[in-house]
Amino acid sequence: MNVRVHGRRRHYRTVDFDARANAVVLIEQRKLPHTFELTRTRTTRQTAAAITNMTVRGAGAIGATAAYGLAQAARAFNGKTEAAFDRHLQRAYDTLAAARPTAVDLVNALNDVSAAMAVSNTIAQKQKLALIAARKFADDDVAHCEAIGRHGAKLIKNGMRVLTHCNAGWLAFVDIGSATAPMYAAQAKGKKFHVYCDETRPRSQGAALTAWELAQQGVAHEVIADNAAGHLMQRGEIDLVITGSDRTLGRTGEVCNKIGTYTKAVLAARHRIPFYVAIPLSTIDWNLKSGMDIPIEEREEEEVLSAWGADTRGTFRPVRVANPTSHARNPAFDVTPANLITGIITPKGIVKPRELWRARKRLGFS
Amino acid sequence: MNVRVHGRRRHYRTVDFDARANAVVLIEQRKLPHTFELTRTRTTRQTAAAITNMTVRGAGAIGATAAYGLAQAARAFNGKTEAAFDRHLQRAYDTLAAARPTAVDLVNALNDVSAAMAVSNTIAQKQKLALIAARKFADDDVAHCEAIGRHGAKLIKNGMRVLTHCNAGWLAFVDIGSATAPMYAAQAKGKKFHVYCDETRPRSQGAALTAWELAQQGVAHEVIADNAAGHLMQRGEIDLVITGSDRTLGRTGEVCNKIGTYTKAVLAARHRIPFYVAIPLSTIDWNLKSGMDIPIEEREEEEVLSAWGADTRGTFRPVRVANPTSHARNPAFDVTPANLITGIITPKGIVKPRELWRARKRLGFS
Repeated sequence: MNVRVHGRRRHYRTVDFDARANAVVLIEQRKLPHTFELTRTRTTRQTAAAITNMTVRGAGAIGATAAYGLAQAARAFNGKTEAAFDRHLQRAYDTLAAARPTAVDLVNALNDVSAAMAVSNTIAQKQKLALIAARKFADDDVAHCEAIGRHGAKLIKNGMRVLTHCNAGWLAFVDIGSATAPMYAAQAKGKKFHVYCDETRPRSQGAALTAWELAQQGVAHEVIADNAAGHLMQRGEIDLVITGSDRTLGRTGEVCNKIGTYTKAVLAARHRIPFYVAIPLSTIDWNLKSGMDIPIEEREEEEVLSAWGADTRGTFRPVRVANPTSHARNPAFDVTPANLITGIITPKGIVKPRELWRARKRLGFS
Repeated sequence: MNVRVHGRRRHYRTVDFDARANAVVLIEQRKLPHTFELTRTRTTRQTAAAITNMTVRGAGAIGATAAYGLAQAARAFNGKTEAAFDRHLQRAYDTLAAARPTAVDLVNALNDVSAAMAVSNTIAQKQKLALIAARKFADDDVAHCEAIGRHGAKLIKNGMRVLTHCNAGWLAFVDIGSATAPMYAAQAKGKKFHVYCDETRPRSQGAALTAWELAQQGVAHEVIADNAAGHLMQRGEIDLVITGSDRTLGRTGEVCNKIGTYTKAVLAARHRIPFYVAIPLSTIDWNLKSGMDIPIEEREEEEVLSAWGADTRGTFRPVRVANPTSHARNPAFDVTPANLITGIITPKGIVKPRELWRARKRLGFS
């Protein structure tokens, strides 16, 4: 999407590749919203580290980074034998796959690039095919988000107040985003609407990243405390909810997403407010039989006990909010049952959550 | 309650009075949980400022501060005529009443002290009666909280996991607190239980104040993000919810309390978890006919856009969490309907919210 840097608007992808320098080019997300900066990773190890340390985060963005990372590894090979090339690539694959062990898209992306290389048997050809496959993975991610936008835009009517949670925006993908795609598409059609961004404690991705994105794109929005959505719904001030999903169960229609999503779905159902989840198809899990079987990651308690932001001099730093001798629980995700979800916005159209399984052929799965 | 300062435990009230110095003695709540400090206000103006700037906050604590503030004004009078005394007192009354315009308890407290003084007609006698009345107001606040604890303690069984929101603890009263009173009473009976403190953004009173209180009293607890309660309820990890209330409608049983309370009540109802509200009788509003008529204070957006805490050197400071060019909505309270509330814990027993009106005589109102 477009970013205004030093007064000039330019288009950036969250994840890109500089073929001449053989470098992955990433928006440094840890410094947002306070500093906009691109970072280049020049080795597989650096690329994997950028995933681990959350320079880049979000399903699609991680997948594309890993795909480019494997192409980068292939192109950096300067040995001779095919056997050495294979060993070199396997090491790179393992390094990248281990960067965020729970991210499904990451492994899918690596497998895509590996499969593309398998078609040829010269090293030089494999190196070219790897980059073509990685670029295709990134371009497909963009195309999927565009398609989500086309299908989702019709849900947004003039004058609506739309709530979103966490960041399922273009910073979480190569471009455009999932939950934000319908907003950007509706904006392109000239619709006027207002977005409420849940702060999304403990990591505050809504206040920091979604609000930044929407500000860059000129979409009217306000940040609210996670506590405020129920009150606004009760007073008739929210018309539609759109969130993303980290894992969507194809068999049950349950959605596993950032902690707090379930709460918003419960509130929306009570107030008969449509609740949609926007997803690329790669986040559908066709195997698991129950959302209660999804292991919920408990992250470090410091995220809850502290907050991160810019001090009055602009220095990004943590402050300890909670009582210093207290501890915290920090579940990072929750599971929303299908009966609280009005529809799943996919690149192939909007599907009712319980009908995902029956629609799997239409969605391109067999 | 007891506080450990420099390794020694001592009993403190949140609000006290030093008759010799004619000073109100307050726990400086803006520095908690990072620094425990007492502050003395030596003039009516200083006492009113302490209420306005939130050195002291919470219904009961504000009431007692105002009561002592008026006694302090009476005792500071060094003129001669009764007319001058009356004018002096009226100015003090007005200054104190304006300190937090929405606090019902504050005006009740000032009227109590004024009524007590009216009994006599010598200045010296009025000065004595004012302090007696102020002390009685504070002692009554403590007695009411103790009674809430006696009635509420039976709700807490061994092994329970109890959720609370915001701070309706002893820092919000002269001592003991409302929502925390059943916890402290259950603890005194030797019951073992665990408290989850909602962080309570945007001002984080749960993480900062309730967690500090519970730590000082040795009650097992953990802080959670406001987003996490729904998930914990879904997984069966919360057995009981107790919150406070800023205003309870005697006619409808609706409860107006810190933003986010309504959300927790909706979640608790969905999971059939008992949801109790603990209140001193002074917060009951017998006049309003609908909770939707309560004006909801919208506070400054900076509270949502930033967070406050101690940096790595221990300096208390704000950091800007949200995107710098974004704005925020900040409703400070919400309204929970009676049908989501299992019971209201009052100093005179537990009453169903819809039965408050019928119970008003038993509660001491006519």
